[in-house]
Amino acid sequence: MIRLAFCGLGAIGTPMARHLVGDRFDLVVWNRTHERATAFAANQGVRVASTPADAAAQRDIVITCLPTSREVSALLDGDDGLLAALAPGSLLLDCTSGDPATSREIAARLAERGVHFVDAPVSGGVSGAEAGTLTVMCGGRDEDVERARPVLEAFGQRIVHAGPVGAGHALKAVNNGLLAMHIWGTAEGLTALAKAGVRPDLALEVINASSGRSNSSENLFPQRVLTGAFPRTFRAALLDKDVGIAAEVARDARVPSPLLQLTAELWRMAHNELGEDADHVEAVRVVERLAGVALRAGPLPTPEKPA
Amino acid sequence: MIRLAFCGLGAIGTPMARHLVGDRFDLVVWNRTHERATAFAANQGVRVASTPADAAAQRDIVITCLPTSREVSALLDGDDGLLAALAPGSLLLDCTSGDPATSREIAARLAERGVHFVDAPVSGGVSGAEAGTLTVMCGGRDEDVERARPVLEAFGQRIVHAGPVGAGHALKAVNNGLLAMHIWGTAEGLTALAKAGVRPDLALEVINASSGRSNSSENLFPQRVLTGAFPRTFRAALLDKDVGIAAEVARDARVPSPLLQLTAELWRMAHNELGEDADHVEAVRVVERLAGVALRAGPLPTPEKPA
Amino acid sequence: MIRLAFCGLGAIGTPMARHLVGDRFDLVVWNRTHERATAFAANQGVRVASTPADAAAQRDIVITCLPTSREVSALLDGDDGLLAALAPGSLLLDCTSGDPATSREIAARLAERGVHFVDAPVSGGVSGAEAGTLTVMCGGRDEDVERARPVLEAFGQRIVHAGPVGAGHALKAVNNGLLAMHIWGTAEGLTALAKAGVRPDLALEVINASSGRSNSSENLFPQRVLTGAFPRTFRAALLDKDVGIAAEVARDARVPSPLLQLTAELWRMAHNELGEDADHVEAVRVVERLAGVALRAGPLPTPEKPA
Amino acid sequence: MIRLAFCGLGAIGTPMARHLVGDRFDLVVWNRTHERATAFAANQGVRVASTPADAAAQRDIVITCLPTSREVSALLDGDDGLLAALAPGSLLLDCTSGDPATSREIAARLAERGVHFVDAPVSGGVSGAEAGTLTVMCGGRDEDVERARPVLEAFGQRIVHAGPVGAGHALKAVNNGLLAMHIWGTAEGLTALAKAGVRPDLALEVINASSGRSNSSENLFPQRVLTGAFPRTFRAALLDKDVGIAAEVARDARVPSPLLQLTAELWRMAHNELGEDADHVEAVRVVERLAGVALRAGPLPTPEKPA
Repeated sequence: MIRLAFCGLGAIGTPMARHLVGDRFDLVVWNRTHERATAFAANQGVRVASTPADAAAQRDIVITCLPTSREVSALLDGDDGLLAALAPGSLLLDCTSGDPATSREIAARLAERGVHFVDAPVSGGVSGAEAGTLTVMCGGRDEDVERARPVLEAFGQRIVHAGPVGAGHALKAVNNGLLAMHIWGTAEGLTALAKAGVRPDLALEVINASSGRSNSSENLFPQRVLTGAFPRTFRAALLDKDVGIAAEVARDARVPSPLLQLTAELWRMAHNELGEDADHVEAVRVVERLAGVALRAGPLPTPEKPA
Repeated sequence: MIRLAFCGLGAIGTPMARHLVGDRFDLVVWNRTHERATAFAANQGVRVASTPADAAAQRDIVITCLPTSREVSALLDGDDGLLAALAPGSLLLDCTSGDPATSREIAARLAERGVHFVDAPVSGGVSGAEAGTLTVMCGGRDEDVERARPVLEAFGQRIVHAGPVGAGHALKAVNNGLLAMHIWGTAEGLTALAKAGVRPDLALEVINASSGRSNSSENLFPQRVLTGAFPRTFRAALLDKDVGIAAEVARDARVPSPLLQLTAELWRMAHNELGEDADHVEAVRVVERLAGVALRAGPLPTPEKPA
Repeated sequence: MIRLAFCGLGAIGTPMARHLVGDRFDLVVWNRTHERATAFAANQGVRVASTPADAAAQRDIVITCLPTSREVSALLDGDDGLLAALAPGSLLLDCTSGDPATSREIAARLAERGVHFVDAPVSGGVSGAEAGTLTVMCGGRDEDVERARPVLEAFGQRIVHAGPVGAGHALKAVNNGLLAMHIWGTAEGLTALAKAGVRPDLALEVINASSGRSNSSENLFPQRVLTGAFPRTFRAALLDKDVGIAAEVARDARVPSPLLQLTAELWRMAHNELGEDADHVEAVRVVERLAGVALRAGPLPTPEKPA
Repeated sequence: MIRLAFCGLGAIGTPMARHLVGDRFDLVVWNRTHERATAFAANQGVRVASTPADAAAQRDIVITCLPTSREVSALLDGDDGLLAALAPGSLLLDCTSGDPATSREIAARLAERGVHFVDAPVSGGVSGAEAGTLTVMCGGRDEDVERARPVLEAFGQRIVHAGPVGAGHALKAVNNGLLAMHIWGTAEGLTALAKAGVRPDLALEVINASSGRSNSSENLFPQRVLTGAFPRTFRAALLDKDVGIAAEVARDARVPSPLLQLTAELWRMAHNELGEDADHVEAVRVVERLAGVALRAGPLPTPEKPA
């Protein structure tokens, strides 16, 4: 039986942690908002820790799932922090969508105490976390990733060891950076077409049967933009953070990457304009406003260039 | 029986024209390099025209399939040109991947003589043309597109009437502009990851199971980049032209479109560097050179940032 | 005595035309808004033409000074147009801030009738036009520029023959494109500094004593931005047009020019946001809004990062 | 008499340190390459320190002038480091062209020991350092900047207190970022003009009499580019670093800054291509290569678009 602690019972963390309840694992949970941890523990019959240090005490693997690497780093410090309680030989498994540079710093601090580190961000959203079908991108030493595997397989379907510490975070960030680029670029193209008299739904039908298609054009635009639904599933503020990390990965590698860097600028602008609560697809609203046209299904209100 | 002329027996035009041989159509062909037209005619048992005017005489529909709108426009002029021979009431059906502005000029010149115009660029490549499964994007008046439909259905599977004259060209250009953006952006992301120690094949495996995927990441990179094959199927010079048209569509519509405009710049740079014969996916080689790393399958030669 | 016509008595054109009244020139004026021409003629004792054709009849040199090349081109056409009346051997001297491509088309149309063309946009603003100290950038054949020289020297201090037809327009556009880039880039830098706790007036003092200085930092920011004055001297809409022409010059020359192209995008965005009447320096307001800080002299309201 | 140590006798540091020899100061010098310190000391009659700690012992003010903040930070650590020897109440005066984030970290580490910190990068080059006419941009508390003033006035003509710790570095970086933008943007514009048939020397003559002028167009292009001289006075690698810091300042302030970010990308690309030794103005060679034309004085070799 693997002794586990799970820190961070947010929208994704909660369904992930549910897969760690059962015979194979001895689970302790901690959350900054204590009530959420208490509720989870009451439902699932596991123990609640009073502090991060309390969570980490006598655990084989401590899992973190927090908004950014900054929160993970902050969790290490102080008398109540993880660093004070993690036993030599134990493993910190960080499922945060974090950044590689901070992760390498965290790993170095842990290594001084003989504690190991694997970054293991996930993709697949809340539904993937609930179904246990997440994709997990791991960064770390072979033996540490192997050790984490039973935990990762509890909530993940596809476990990929991407490279050294930080590689998981880098890969997640680049994936999300491409998502951010495709959303914005597709919005640019569709608004230009709409102003030239091409209906967005027809344009998407063609693009999705052709070479310009992407996950964004196949799923996000038909379901969320053409309908005007814009459900709130993943915050623009978080995607802004991710594309910023992707751009930083490229800069740190000294890779000229003008499209990624410009994408990061545009999402910073959109985040400033949309605020903290908007969904990531609402960035399309910013492009629509700049273009002066909305991308909804059906006839265009004012075809600007009739033949 | 519809009387047709087909001008432009290139890599795509030739298999398209083959679908127009048979009982339903009376076909005449013309090509700038006369030998190609003669060979086609001998094989298919159709007539060869000596000039564009000869091709257009007494035809219901004249189809053009040329490199750019400039060549279409040039075909109109002079004693041997199309304009001298197209009968009032006939239709010019332009399957070139052309540009909307020139097409509107061509349509205006034709309209003075009572000749109609539909732009109808195709996607699906040589294999789609051979199989008769092309997607066709049409711009023009409803009645003109309907009139062209029997011809288009001979080689196309999906016929979309996108909007007024130029709309087909605009839509094709934007689709290809997104293709160009996705190729370049994915190359930026994968080279940054490779320099951070993440193998391109693993990165693509994850991205293709996640939200950053596109036609480029799903097909072009695994088949052509990881393998180093870079087959020559569609010239970078032509994709440069297309993304340039897409950027122009956005500028003409006064749509702020920084990603499309920057993509156009990068492809102009790549085209200058790669020359006229390179395949479009070889633009990835430019990104690889700038980054100092190649995106091939298997272990990375020099992981730069081991943990 | 040189027989002149002056078409376009706008903010710049009017003081330019005043220098063409006197013994050396026989001047006729025309303006779209007829009252303005009548008022000028009454004041200056010159003749008013009823149409462009009337203005051009029996003139040695016809000068145009209009918003864009489109208006110049439109002035050629029709029974009342310039083309109908310009005598073979006469010269069209276009002082519009126009675009090279349209100018080459105009020159070609004129050449068919034996009429010559020189593009000769000016810089120096209303005050330079009044003082007769404009800089004039000429494009055309040597002999045509020489023939225009007495006219140009009447209102210009520095007459530069830049190259063939269109070269004057290209040079003016690039100069203004650099102006647009420097305004926007300096605003980006100063807003970033302001948010890091550096007062804009101190920052400008240092930059203007150092290597990052430009005409924008030395004149426009201290006089118009720090003061909050933003006087309306040159419309943002016109500078948007000019940077668009500069970007087009670079594209036509197949010169990779990402900074110019991005500058054009940003000004298109600013023009959309600011409307038609705003001054060009008001683009700084757009950058300020995006950054969330104003660039005014004196202590910063909220230093965000105190040490 | 102020007890000083000067660490870093490079191209700029050496002439700066010479102004600190004399009655008002008691100077000790240290340099990584010991011979350079020995030579300086022999010439100037001052003491050489064996280690940074030896230099810092019993000093009122320790001055650092190193390539980047990374070297300054590294100088703090270890038994021989500055941190071990700096007395409480002493001041570290950092004249490096460093970055604000690292400087804030350094200041925080020093503050734990009661040591103060002022960042004070300079502009004016080797000639300004020799003449004692540098501009100095300071970041820090009022009382610390005041305390540093006698030292700064020994080599500086203009001392500007820009703001809190890091403000000096931020301001220097933004100035240099604008320099980098103006060099690249002017090169884009001039190459586009050259390909359109406009001689670079004539273009610069006009621009320098007009609104697009900058320090780059007024000094660098006429003296170094038109002549083909490209003297090595300031390395492209260092300007790449500076524009990278400026871009980081903007990102940290959450200021959308697409022009600065793109400028940073272009200089990263140029640095990769030019290597470590090239002068900063040689970035123009990269633009020339991409454009296919050289910007030298005199007639153009191949006017591409004669009228």
